[in-house]
Amino acid sequence: MREAHGSPPGITLVLGGARSGKSAFAERLVADLDGTPVYIATGRVRDDEMRLRIEHHRDRRGAEWRTVEEPENLERALTREARPGNAVLVDCLTLWITNLMLSQADINVRASALCQVLSEAKGHVVLVSNEVGLGIVPDNAMAREFRDHAGRLHQDIAALADEVFFVAAGLPLKMKG
Amino acid sequence: MREAHGSPPGITLVLGGARSGKSAFAERLVADLDGTPVYIATGRVRDDEMRLRIEHHRDRRGAEWRTVEEPENLERALTREARPGNAVLVDCLTLWITNLMLSQADINVRASALCQVLSEAKGHVVLVSNEVGLGIVPDNAMAREFRDHAGRLHQDIAALADEVFFVAAGLPLKMKG
Amino acid sequence: MREAHGSPPGITLVLGGARSGKSAFAERLVADLDGTPVYIATGRVRDDEMRLRIEHHRDRRGAEWRTVEEPENLERALTREARPGNAVLVDCLTLWITNLMLSQADINVRASALCQVLSEAKGHVVLVSNEVGLGIVPDNAMAREFRDHAGRLHQDIAALADEVFFVAAGLPLKMKG
Repeated sequence: MREAHGSPPGITLVLGGARSGKSAFAERLVADLDGTPVYIATGRVRDDEMRLRIEHHRDRRGAEWRTVEEPENLERALTREARPGNAVLVDCLTLWITNLMLSQADINVRASALCQVLSEAKGHVVLVSNEVGLGIVPDNAMAREFRDHAGRLHQDIAALADEVFFVAAGLPLKMKG
Repeated sequence: MREAHGSPPGITLVLGGARSGKSAFAERLVADLDGTPVYIATGRVRDDEMRLRIEHHRDRRGAEWRTVEEPENLERALTREARPGNAVLVDCLTLWITNLMLSQADINVRASALCQVLSEAKGHVVLVSNEVGLGIVPDNAMAREFRDHAGRLHQDIAALADEVFFVAAGLPLKMKG
Repeated sequence: MREAHGSPPGITLVLGGARSGKSAFAERLVADLDGTPVYIATGRVRDDEMRLRIEHHRDRRGAEWRTVEEPENLERALTREARPGNAVLVDCLTLWITNLMLSQADINVRASALCQVLSEAKGHVVLVSNEVGLGIVPDNAMAREFRDHAGRLHQDIAALADEVFFVAAGLPLKMKG
């Protein structure tokens, strides 16, 4: 599978809906790369539903993975981890945006900083994110704002990525690369 | 068109959004197969909106189809109908999940049983389902649970299916097969 | 890029989610065509959020574009503008449907009239629309009705279009053409 993903360092974006199999697909991509698999988890455990999902993902990945929990400063975590010898999975961008919104961070600034870090990455990075813009316009302004931030970030990362996949029903569709 | 769908028996999953033309596309797939077209309707008529949709679908299919209404025990209906000489259309999985949730059935158990029946099917089966995971996270827990069940079932059926299509604006995109 | 879009006159449908980059992609398609680019805006300015989006789009397009604001009578605007020497962009169909619903127009009649005008167009027309049917079924009946109208119109226009694209993360996926 390695030939299909280009030579590292490289950037791969994996988009998909809820329960689309996007994380499992992204994990397989990273596991097929050379180097130590590093999992950067942006999720902040807020309730049991969340805790169960995180544990389920961790069990699936297995013991060879190193896990870094970084709900907000993804730029710093990537600066540290995206280096030769590592293959990094970021799961996921939409949770990162959620955390930044709750902290009232300037998301445009942070998104630019993230793209800068990615463009200088020294190791392969696979980023997972939820596509959330294909339903009815949400009633509340915060959900619309979230949708706008997510869509813009996806466009920015897709523009600099070497590969972009859209995953549905566990099946990847290559959009770029 | 038959060549494109492999030799029966086989399993085809047709995913799409609301009003995407997925049912009409699936009906054409089944009509192009050999055998008697059998329509397994999982919809339970709850209101006039629903009744109108069902009648509209029935008129479109025409008189050569046999219709089986089975809102809950889809496994039994498929065990009976997925046999040589029949070409079966199940419309749709998301309504089946809805009905099971309303009956407080154990959906993981039922989904496994359905996949078992499909893996032993003796006739071609085309299954239609709504992709519902590409919007904003729903506020209420039951909608989130529904979305999770639907997404997992799509992954499981896609894994065993011979073909998977994603339909938008009436146009099929082949994801597998 | 022109070869890829067939010889004008022709009809191109560009579908995508919120903040998917669909408008920017459609603008590039029109800018690559021969003729004066004409932008038919169906959006009615209702609030500052809307005003900002419209101004942002206008700045991006540049001075060579002619803008026509037509929130409701899209059929008339297209009859006038879809002629040799023009390359027309309609942005977007979902706002047009919204405006017609608020005016209690008969949308099936209007959609048929629009398709008739498109089938007789004498210049290339690119139409942008939001895919809104891939989330959870909305609670309120008006949102469900909107979703049905949009989905049906997308199917009708896709059937007569020369090309259909689905845009995600700024990346076009060709569905037809």
